[in-house]
This record gives sequence, structure tokens and C-alpha cells, in this order.
Amino acid sequence: MNGEKLNMTMLCDFYELTMGNGYFEKGYKDRITYFDLFFRRCPDGGGFAIAAGLDQIIDYVLNLHFSEEDIEYLRGRKLFSEGFLEYLKNFKFTGDIWAVPEGTPIFPHEPIITVRAPAIEAQLVETYLLLCINHQSLIATKANRIVRAAQGRTVLEFGSRRAQGTDAAILGARAAYIGGCNGTACTISDQLYGVYAGGTMAHAWVQMFESEYEAFKTYCEIYPNNATLLVDTYNTLKSGIPNAIRVFNEVLKPKGITKCGIRLDSGDIAYLSQKARKMLDDAGWTECQISASNSLDEHLILDLLRQGAKIDMFGVGERLITARSEPVFGGVYKLAAVEDDDGTIVPKIKISENVGKITNPHFKKLYRFFGNDTGKAIADYICVHDETVDDSADLEIFDPEATWKTKTVYNFTAKELQVPIFQNGELVYKRPTLEQIRTYCLQQVDTLWDEVKRFDNPHNYYVDLSQKLWDIKFGLLKSHGKQ
Amino acid sequence: MNGEKLNMTMLCDFYELTMGNGYFEKGYKDRITYFDLFFRRCPDGGGFAIAAGLDQIIDYVLNLHFSEEDIEYLRGRKLFSEGFLEYLKNFKFTGDIWAVPEGTPIFPHEPIITVRAPAIEAQLVETYLLLCINHQSLIATKANRIVRAAQGRTVLEFGSRRAQGTDAAILGARAAYIGGCNGTACTISDQLYGVYAGGTMAHAWVQMFESEYEAFKTYCEIYPNNATLLVDTYNTLKSGIPNAIRVFNEVLKPKGITKCGIRLDSGDIAYLSQKARKMLDDAGWTECQISASNSLDEHLILDLLRQGAKIDMFGVGERLITARSEPVFGGVYKLAAVEDDDGTIVPKIKISENVGKITNPHFKKLYRFFGNDTGKAIADYICVHDETVDDSADLEIFDPEATWKTKTVYNFTAKELQVPIFQNGELVYKRPTLEQIRTYCLQQVDTLWDEVKRFDNPHNYYVDLSQKLWDIKFGLLKSHGKQ
Repeated sequence: MNGEKLNMTMLCDFYELTMGNGYFEKGYKDRITYFDLFFRRCPDGGGFAIAAGLDQIIDYVLNLHFSEEDIEYLRGRKLFSEGFLEYLKNFKFTGDIWAVPEGTPIFPHEPIITVRAPAIEAQLVETYLLLCINHQSLIATKANRIVRAAQGRTVLEFGSRRAQGTDAAILGARAAYIGGCNGTACTISDQLYGVYAGGTMAHAWVQMFESEYEAFKTYCEIYPNNATLLVDTYNTLKSGIPNAIRVFNEVLKPKGITKCGIRLDSGDIAYLSQKARKMLDDAGWTECQISASNSLDEHLILDLLRQGAKIDMFGVGERLITARSEPVFGGVYKLAAVEDDDGTIVPKIKISENVGKITNPHFKKLYRFFGNDTGKAIADYICVHDETVDDSADLEIFDPEATWKTKTVYNFTAKELQVPIFQNGELVYKRPTLEQIRTYCLQQVDTLWDEVKRFDNPHNYYVDLSQKLWDIKFGLLKSHGKQ
Repeated sequence: MNGEKLNMTMLCDFYELTMGNGYFEKGYKDRITYFDLFFRRCPDGGGFAIAAGLDQIIDYVLNLHFSEEDIEYLRGRKLFSEGFLEYLKNFKFTGDIWAVPEGTPIFPHEPIITVRAPAIEAQLVETYLLLCINHQSLIATKANRIVRAAQGRTVLEFGSRRAQGTDAAILGARAAYIGGCNGTACTISDQLYGVYAGGTMAHAWVQMFESEYEAFKTYCEIYPNNATLLVDTYNTLKSGIPNAIRVFNEVLKPKGITKCGIRLDSGDIAYLSQKARKMLDDAGWTECQISASNSLDEHLILDLLRQGAKIDMFGVGERLITARSEPVFGGVYKLAAVEDDDGTIVPKIKISENVGKITNPHFKKLYRFFGNDTGKAIADYICVHDETVDDSADLEIFDPEATWKTKTVYNFTAKELQVPIFQNGELVYKRPTLEQIRTYCLQQVDTLWDEVKRFDNPHNYYVDLSQKLWDIKFGLLKSHGKQ
């Protein structure tokens, strides 16, 4: 119905196919490769991001195949050998995938997803894996910022109409929910994913009637238990709120209903919400909730609350659904190792003049260390796949870029962050419900120190390399430097 | 396969359904309404935007219907009457839609789409119409800026992996093509829409081999006619370009092939491209094309060219596919009129304390005036549906906000911009091919004066109202002001 179950095999960068055909022709088809998906910088200058998008990747991998039409299209491009096209007919994913579960706070340079598979398979999934993680992690991260700014008040996702396409609307609402939003305006996201969808009226409803009063009254008569009235079509304080109170008194009061709402969608929200609160309270409608929904984001919400705005519920639109202030989550997908014919894993590196763009080579393992006394996350630790952290002993870790900066961690529990998703092409992961993901996300964000959660200029969380991994990386750098 | 033929009826804001049920209950089901889709400001401070997304709207409208599961979901929400749910079972679009063709340059406040339909139908399509136009117009507009900055050089869309979901990737490539891009890296956009897709290799290809030389040589042997080599995996000037030249000499030269390419993806593109050009020319590879692809947008491209960069082809990624500098196209959908029982059209207005947010009421007509001597667009003109512009006579027009600013247009041709798309629910529009849309777009952008096309601080193109429409608008404003 919405694309999630559809075959997206052809949503790949064309070079994945030219490389695939090249590997096939060169006899590298069965060569085992390791790719890491990671990102380099948190959006909005934040201290962490939220992983999201894995569930859609699982659907994609399960459905990977080339249809007859796909093969015909490729044949028409006159670049691919018949042998390769024949191979694609029976193409499926046969490798292993490990991933950090959705909802986990994540940091730059650590492997969010690791793919171990024959070269052609591992290369082909690059675009879709990146697209899924980049999109949903971006929105979940932004949503989490906005939800934290709202300090316990309800936050609803209202942005479908400004989303960058249908997927951006539907899955954007899902990602926003993972990040902590309480619901959405997008009906299909509720139907498909159980993201609670709500809404009452647009300005058109108010305009459709002879008067605002009649529009409000009609609405309350039809929906006495879902009566949130949009009060800014003509004049918020002079007509909108007085008409709302009149209708609450005439329609709701006789039914004994005390729960209702108004929505402010323009004008100065701080001023109007305080005036509205007083007018509603004076009229006895103390349980009437005030919603606001005009170009909101985490900064404006913080500012409104600082100015004493009386808002119970924020409807956040375009600035959430597009992550307007920074609409790109820069995840990349890089080769980390290949296996020799005898199964030896050979680490690979990508060098750049920009030091931050040099990759961490090899098949790796990712740990998070939690303090046993506080339950808080202390540091993340990347080591080689065959290393194991013994958390019963103290461990000295060091900054991989300024290696003289060391820190000893003690009394801690080391938890592996990546879990197996596919093994030999078989799904081995029990997919959590969206509700479970959201709960897990909010719990995990709670394990971060406030310093890491600061909106601007947060503390740089430690993501360190083991001595063994560091030695391998700098050995490769030196050998390439000599070429 | 990609969503375009799928039923997206439930991709609506929930309030469209609560209002729909309200109209149904109130007996307004068959009340004819007029809605306008328009935008208020061009992205990036530009002087115009490019309309795109209509073709997907046509598919959506043709497929509008509620399935049994949709109705079941809605029944479960316990807000909707059985009468309304029964009505939804046979729901289809029965109204009229007029729209500006895709590829047309458009300006703030003019109706891009006008819907005339029974209230429930016109309201339900709000989210999807906005989403389509907002997304694709955003990308087409950004692409057109980038293409103009490249001054005739090839521009390819490379951003799928950073797109906000699958639709954003697939239809983003389509919109970028409309705006003037020459192709994409996204395979499925070629397969589905005929946006030419190309690509050769990622860094992984180079890393996969024992040496860069071997990687390049293998590639050229397999694809002698599609040999664009990525030269920055280790060291662009010391190894990448020398290895490329060596392989061109060894593999392409004996075959008499002179066309080939290199791609720069990091480092200082201005400096590296000039060095690369000289090295290639000195080696006799004067036809070798240089591509660049690192965080490009219109500003960086202009700057690179100003600095003498020797680039033949730009691959533009995240800053195009998300319109990173301003990722929201703020289209809105507002009630403009309703019909009385006797068929009289009653204009409706939405008032705001922000003057720019006040709507243009009534069922309207949109003209563009072209100078007969220059072929250039002089002004757009919005009038009431029953007015006709006589372009054989001079016409005095005036600024709707500063009415003392007048201008007389003469020797001009008035062209209606909106064309009928649906009449009584039937598609009456002959859908152009993507190639036709792109050609039309580039022709129409050519009708704009350079002053309007300036990247920053462009001339404000005239979008004026007829005297009759202005009188109706200010009459409504005055009468509401008195309430």
C-alpha cells in the first residue's frame, strides 16, 4: 500500500550496477566484503543522534530481487554482460547484517550497520541502506530535540504537506514518534504503523459557515469529545476565543464535558496563549487545552516557554518533517575489509586530506560502557571483531585523534550495541514494535548526561578505538603515505 | 512498483476526515467549493519558482478510493458516522481541477492549482496536492538555480542516498530533470521516468583491488566506452591522475578511444581541476572530461567557475535532493469561494494579522502577459473567473499592496496559465512527456528577464490583481474588520 513491501531493488545508484558487473566479470562475485554505515557529524550541532530506519531496511532486504522488467531495462543499457544479467535473475541477499537497534542514541564514526556479504550484494544495498538510515535518523533526532524542548508537553507531528514526498510524510511521522512525538496528523501513518493520528479542523471549516460561531457550534455538536477549535481565522482575541467559550458553554457544558481545546496558528503565540488562558480560566474552562502550531522548532519552543507561554500541546510542521535547520543526515557506507580466499580478513582504509574523512578499517565490534553506579553512558568503544572487553577490570581508553588524552573507566558494564539482523541471508532479528522502539529510545536518551544533551555546544561524548584497532589503522595510513 | 500507481487516499491529514464527516452530517456534502493552491515566497530568495508535481497528482486523483481496510480503520476511530463511512465506500473525485503545467515559472500568491468540487472531495485532497507540488517544485526550482550557475556545463543529480525517503529520491530526480539537470545516478528514476541514469565507480571499487592502477585498468578493460575513473581514493595528484593517464594510455589508446573521464570527490576542486586538466592535456587526453562532486550547490559552482576551475560536469548530491539551503516550499491550500444552492459563487477570505497571509478570494483566472516585441514575460495578472483580458488594447495594472504604483502594458499577448486537468472527475488533460516538460521549462525560463533570474535580490516580478478582484477582496476585508 505505501511502498514498504514493494521491491526497491532498482532504487540504487547506477554505479552499484556497473561495479557489480565489473566484480562479476573479474571473478570477484563471491569475494566477501565488509562495509560499515556510519555518520560523521550530528545535525544541528547536537551531541548525539537517534538511529532509525532499520525496520524498512529489513523489508527491503527480504524483498531484494530483480524482476524480468528490471533485467530488460538493464540489458537495454548495453553495458552489462549476459552472464551478469543471468546472475541477477536469481539474485538475493545471502550475507550477514549487524545493526544498532532503532531508537539507540548514536555518535559520529561508529558503525551503525555492518554488512558482510559477497561484493556485488554488499555494494548493491548501499543506496537504500543509506537513504533509510539518513532519512529516519534525521527526523528522529530532530524530533527528540523538539520533544526535549517541550519539557513534558505534548508534541504532535503536523508536517505531511511540506514533506519531501510520500515516504517522507509517512515514515517521517514514524521516525518522529520514535524520537518522542506523541502523535501525528498523518492518517496513513496511524493505519500502517500505529502512530496515533489526530486533528479537528482547518480554516476552511470556519470559512464554510455563515459565521465563526456557527462553525464552532456545528463542530462541537458533532464532536463533543474531540472539540479543538481553530480560533484565528478572523481575530483570535476578539472573535475566536469568545466564540469558542460561547460554544463550549452552550454545547459542552450541558453534557458535563470539561475537556476541550483551542488551537492558535498565527500571531504572537506567547502573548495570545497567555490571554487565551486567562479568558478560558475566567470562563471556567480550566481544562481547555491550548495548542499552538506556527513554524515551531526546538528553539522557538524553548523561547516561548521562557516567555511564559501557556501552551499544552505543540503541533510541529515543516521544521520537523524536513529537519529544516539541517535537512541532511550525512551517513556514508564505506568498505572496511575484504576476505582473502583462505578466509583471512584484510582491513581496508579510505584516505582523505581531510582527517575526519579517513575511515576506521576492519571488521569491528562496538561497545557502550555504562557506569554501574549511575547507569549513565560513559563512552563508546570500537575494537576489532575478535577482541572482547572485560568489564570486570579497569580499562584505559584514549582519544583516537589526541592519543595523549586518556581516561580510565572502572565499575562499568560493557554492552555490545550492534545485534545480528541477518545471518546467511536469513532474518534472525525479532523486530520490536514501534511502541517498544519509542520506549527504548526515551530510556536510552535518559542514560546520557545532560552535558551531552545540551542543544548547543554539547560535551563531546567519547568514541574511542581499542589499541589494536588504532595500530591497524595507523599502520595502513603509514603504508599508503609511503606509496 | 514505486508508489505512483498506488492508492494514497489515506495519506491525508486526519482533520480532512473529521471535517468531511462534519460536512456530511451537516448536509454540506454536495456544497461546491473552490480551493486555491499557491505559495507565498520563492525559496533561497529567488525571483521565481518552477511548478512541478502535477503528473503524480493526476495519478493520485485517478486512484482515489477507500478500500475496505481503510473504512475499517476509520470505523475503529469511533468518530465517524455510519452514513459517512458508507458514503466513503463509493467515494471518487467528481470535480474540476485547473493547473499551471509542470515546468512553468511561477510566482507568489498566484493560483497554481484550483480545485472546484463538493466540499468533502476538495478538502480530502489537500495534503497530497500540497505534498506533491511542494516537494517537486522545491527540487525543480533548486535544480534550475544550479543548472543556471553551471552555465551550460552538464549537471547530474547524485543525491539518492541523502534523500528524505524513497519518493524524495525517485521523484526528486524527476523534478531535478524538469529544472534542467541532464541526468541522475538513481537507476529507478531512469527505468520509471526516463531520467537518464549514469555512474561508474565508488571508492570501494578502488579499494577492492591490490592497487589503484589495477582497479582503473580492470574498469577500463570492462567499460572502455564508459571510463570515468574516481581519482581521489589515496592521493589525487600523486597517484589518482597518473594512474588514470597510464591506464588510458594502456587500454583506451590502442582501441582509438579518446573519450574518457575522471571524477574529483574531495580536496580543493578549483586547484585540483586545473592541475588535472594540465596533466591530462599534457598527456594528450584533451577530450577527457573532468567531473566534480563534493557538496556542490549554485553558490559553490559559481565560485569555482569564477576561480577558473576546469570542470565539465557537476554531480550534485545532498544540497540539491533536499534543497538543503531552504528545504521547504511553503505551498498552501485555501478556500476561495463556495457556491450557493442557486449556483451563485460566494467569495471567501482568510484574514491574518500578517498582511502577506491574507488570501485572494473568489474563483479566479490567471494570465501571463508577454511583450510582443521581446517575447519576454512582463507581468502576471489575476482576475475574476468571468473577466477576460483584451490584449489588443493597452491595460493599466497596479500593485495590489501599493495601489498608487501603476504600469501600462501595451503591445502584449495575454496567455492563460492554468489549463483544465479534470472536468466532472474525468481527466481531460493530455499529459506531456517528461522530455516535453523539461524543454518547456527551459523555454519558459528564457522568457524571464535576467533581473528576475538573479540569484540574490532579484527584481520583484509583477503579480497584479484586476480592479474587480481587488474591489471584492477589500470589500471582504472591510466587512470582516467591522465584525
